[in-house]
Amino acid sequence: MAGSPSRAAGRRLQLPLLCLFLQGATAVLFAVFVRYNHKTDAALWHRSNHSNADNEFYFRYPSFQDVHAMVFVGFGFLMVFLQRYGFSSVGFTFLLAAFALQWSTLVQGFLHSFHGGHIHVGVERPQLEKSKHRQGSVYHSDLFAMIGTIFLWIFWPSFNAALTALGAGQHRTALNTYYSLAASTLGTFALSALVGEDGRLDMVHIQNAALAGGVVVGTSSEMMLTPFGALTAGFLAGTVSTLGYKFFRPILESKFKVQDTCGVHNLHGMPGVLGALLGVLVAGLATHEAYGDGLESVFPLIAEGQRSATSQAMHQLFGLFVTLMFASVGGGLGGLLLKLPFLDSPPDSQCYEDQVHWQVPGEHEDKAQRPLRVEEADTQA
Amino acid sequence: MAGSPSRAAGRRLQLPLLCLFLQGATAVLFAVFVRYNHKTDAALWHRSNHSNADNEFYFRYPSFQDVHAMVFVGFGFLMVFLQRYGFSSVGFTFLLAAFALQWSTLVQGFLHSFHGGHIHVGVERPQLEKSKHRQGSVYHSDLFAMIGTIFLWIFWPSFNAALTALGAGQHRTALNTYYSLAASTLGTFALSALVGEDGRLDMVHIQNAALAGGVVVGTSSEMMLTPFGALTAGFLAGTVSTLGYKFFRPILESKFKVQDTCGVHNLHGMPGVLGALLGVLVAGLATHEAYGDGLESVFPLIAEGQRSATSQAMHQLFGLFVTLMFASVGGGLGGLLLKLPFLDSPPDSQCYEDQVHWQVPGEHEDKAQRPLRVEEADTQA
Amino acid sequence: MAGSPSRAAGRRLQLPLLCLFLQGATAVLFAVFVRYNHKTDAALWHRSNHSNADNEFYFRYPSFQDVHAMVFVGFGFLMVFLQRYGFSSVGFTFLLAAFALQWSTLVQGFLHSFHGGHIHVGVERPQLEKSKHRQGSVYHSDLFAMIGTIFLWIFWPSFNAALTALGAGQHRTALNTYYSLAASTLGTFALSALVGEDGRLDMVHIQNAALAGGVVVGTSSEMMLTPFGALTAGFLAGTVSTLGYKFFRPILESKFKVQDTCGVHNLHGMPGVLGALLGVLVAGLATHEAYGDGLESVFPLIAEGQRSATSQAMHQLFGLFVTLMFASVGGGLGGLLLKLPFLDSPPDSQCYEDQVHWQVPGEHEDKAQRPLRVEEADTQA
Repeated sequence: MAGSPSRAAGRRLQLPLLCLFLQGATAVLFAVFVRYNHKTDAALWHRSNHSNADNEFYFRYPSFQDVHAMVFVGFGFLMVFLQRYGFSSVGFTFLLAAFALQWSTLVQGFLHSFHGGHIHVGVERPQLEKSKHRQGSVYHSDLFAMIGTIFLWIFWPSFNAALTALGAGQHRTALNTYYSLAASTLGTFALSALVGEDGRLDMVHIQNAALAGGVVVGTSSEMMLTPFGALTAGFLAGTVSTLGYKFFRPILESKFKVQDTCGVHNLHGMPGVLGALLGVLVAGLATHEAYGDGLESVFPLIAEGQRSATSQAMHQLFGLFVTLMFASVGGGLGGLLLKLPFLDSPPDSQCYEDQVHWQVPGEHEDKAQRPLRVEEADTQA
Repeated sequence: MAGSPSRAAGRRLQLPLLCLFLQGATAVLFAVFVRYNHKTDAALWHRSNHSNADNEFYFRYPSFQDVHAMVFVGFGFLMVFLQRYGFSSVGFTFLLAAFALQWSTLVQGFLHSFHGGHIHVGVERPQLEKSKHRQGSVYHSDLFAMIGTIFLWIFWPSFNAALTALGAGQHRTALNTYYSLAASTLGTFALSALVGEDGRLDMVHIQNAALAGGVVVGTSSEMMLTPFGALTAGFLAGTVSTLGYKFFRPILESKFKVQDTCGVHNLHGMPGVLGALLGVLVAGLATHEAYGDGLESVFPLIAEGQRSATSQAMHQLFGLFVTLMFASVGGGLGGLLLKLPFLDSPPDSQCYEDQVHWQVPGEHEDKAQRPLRVEEADTQA
Repeated sequence: MAGSPSRAAGRRLQLPLLCLFLQGATAVLFAVFVRYNHKTDAALWHRSNHSNADNEFYFRYPSFQDVHAMVFVGFGFLMVFLQRYGFSSVGFTFLLAAFALQWSTLVQGFLHSFHGGHIHVGVERPQLEKSKHRQGSVYHSDLFAMIGTIFLWIFWPSFNAALTALGAGQHRTALNTYYSLAASTLGTFALSALVGEDGRLDMVHIQNAALAGGVVVGTSSEMMLTPFGALTAGFLAGTVSTLGYKFFRPILESKFKVQDTCGVHNLHGMPGVLGALLGVLVAGLATHEAYGDGLESVFPLIAEGQRSATSQAMHQLFGLFVTLMFASVGGGLGGLLLKLPFLDSPPDSQCYEDQVHWQVPGEHEDKAQRPLRVEEADTQA
């Protein structure tokens, strides 16, 4: 009992102090390191040196707004299906994305645009983060979550294309990702009905597995995957992901005591591993004939004769193991960290419950305070 | 009674088999026919032959994302107003659009980019499909549906401009469509309040008739309609469409036993016919003076002297009759097809009901499983 | 009592007559004054005089669709949090925006593109309007309102950049606005938890104060504010705005009888004044060194030596007073106007109630008319 007021006091200060500290430290780093780049700094920009095309500010595909729409709307609303965790889902994604947008400047800056002791910024993109969990849904929550799914679907090609080289590679990435997403949507509907109770579709599958096509071509969408290859990979990813939601998640929970409530393993894990293996395969098939001049932008070391296609495939495979190792060690450390007592995680009964962090209004209007009907008011007037 | 288990079994296999068959057949057609185009294929793309403008990937208006946002968000959420059909509305639109996106490649490919035995694809657009019906709404469903309406409104100019020639025609199409939509919105609010019970607005009118302005200039938005003409056409379309919802739909139902639950006739039918007649009129007024050089891209045959403006107007009128004939015969055949017994349409009591195809959660959270309030949990801790 | 039927009759005619009159008058003004510009008029557009870049229709940042998405989705859904005013919020914003889009052509046309007796239009932007009020929310209404918040957040940089000069100024405006929005989001979460009951976040703060960062740099985002300056200004605006919602609004209501239900003063008022003062400060610091050639596009009079930086700062300060005077006088007159008896404002009991203007469906499906469950139907079949 004695712990209750101090716990409430701790809760009151936890988030403000965290936000203040993070924003303060970030602002200091910005003051020291971040400067406008030559396209953005008034003094570095010379009217006479710029063509009209430089003066006008066209959207280059993918635009930073694509990525923002994907992160804020897409991820924000994807997890709103939770019965009593909608505020947290959309709210904390908003907070994380706003913070990540600033840190992406610092991290990408130190990696790419650090010269003369400063990071030079023009228009830049946010990093992604999400880690919410699922328990149960209500009808309207599931419809909200479809807003998230659809925005992720529309902008996933932009997401994959954001990291590829300009030119044919970017067209190819967008196109392969669209085809893969389209086929994974059909694969998901097919499998969801096939394994569903009485042949009925499960909204969880549609909300998640339909996006597996974007994940599975994450590595290979820039390569010469071919439209047929993209369709096949997408369909496979949709089916594997749906099967994961149906059969693998219950086993994870009951046998391994791992609660993957929003199915990160089924949407990002398995299709991601599948996609890495697909990348190994397609890289191993890379030839000068298939890529022509484009080989230089996709596989520069093969183009320059410093690496064979088989060797490139082995490097890709090694990359998968490095990723899995980072994921295992990082996940383990993260889990240990969250168990530290001073982090004061809420008791199990409070999981997936907005009330822990939010003032929550009722589900319905207050009938007692309901205004008079118009007719009644007219009569009284 | 005996039919029940086999009907459930049929339902379980129907959608998966359909998806598998369609996706499989599509993939085979892709394998045989579809290739990247020269901007997308690594081997066909030569670094030295491209200016920076080719390497960078600008959004040309209208972008394919405009059309995706219109179809997936716009049409997906437009029909969510149904009480118990929201999952089907947004889910099956999603499925259809994902499939149509692939077939648009094949159909457009055979029409336009088929050479050397292959279809050559770069970034391409999906076809539209929708055919859901309306029965009744609840408060939040109607708000959801407004997401659909607003996305359709924002992107309808892109939709009309997607088929027009580059240059002035595309600017004109976007501008005329915006003006027409704006005026049809005002016309709809005016008429909806005028004919509404106690002068109150009906959300169904706003959700649908406000878009009639996009339909009515579908034919003529590329022509020299003038901004004034666009406003007039849009306002007229908004009023006609609202009157259709209010007075014509009940007659269709009671006298002709035709149930046009989501008002396709009022939003697409009547304003479409009106728009075709408007196209006849504006085409008949086409002169070299009004169009200048632009006549060649809008009416090439008039520009080359092979056809008079009056003759062009007659051709437009004939196009309307061809369209109406296709619609009548196609609609009749479609209706007969849906009555075939093996298609196993649900009984009337199951229409507009998500449960037929979806596992549906409750409307509200399960109070019995509701977690403790935070204060109680703190006290217990 | 006797007034009731005539009041209903008045209500029936009020909105239609207003829409008809406004749309009619606008159409007449269009007929007299508005013409396509040279990029849009078929006759003024000569194929040979245009490069490919002119023929193709790229999105220049910010696109008109950015502004439409911000106004229609953003403002439309921002006010949906009201328990029984969602239809009015999204519906009347829709109506106002559709009308404003037409008038922006006329107003901007008379200011900028009026020559030869006509306004010449290409693709143009709408003006903003909003004036809804808040009372109480329910869980799903608050989630809906977050759709509005997020669209405003994503497109606020476009909004600020829409008025700035092309070139470096536009890049700088977008970048400064993003940084300021990001920092105001963190500031809002920090302060909301700090002042919240039991340290819990208030959704009203997140929905509104997180946007104060876009307001506070409205004046100075084109200037050399620096990324650090943008972060600092945004964080400050987020905290000030949150404090306004928590402490200032109750005082306004109880002491001054001013009901600022949706917090215009907290989101637009105080951060706006703060932003004007920030503009005074940053303008006063403008030097040839900091701006180089760019000084001419941001502060042309300083660049030409006709005005000192200090004098520019004083002009900015004077602009603030002019704005405040217009706001006070305009607001006072507006208030008096709304009290005129013939405008027939609804009684207090009808405020924030959709029923006044809309036919409103129930909150929930009608259980009595609920179709049979699938199992029952199968059994009966």
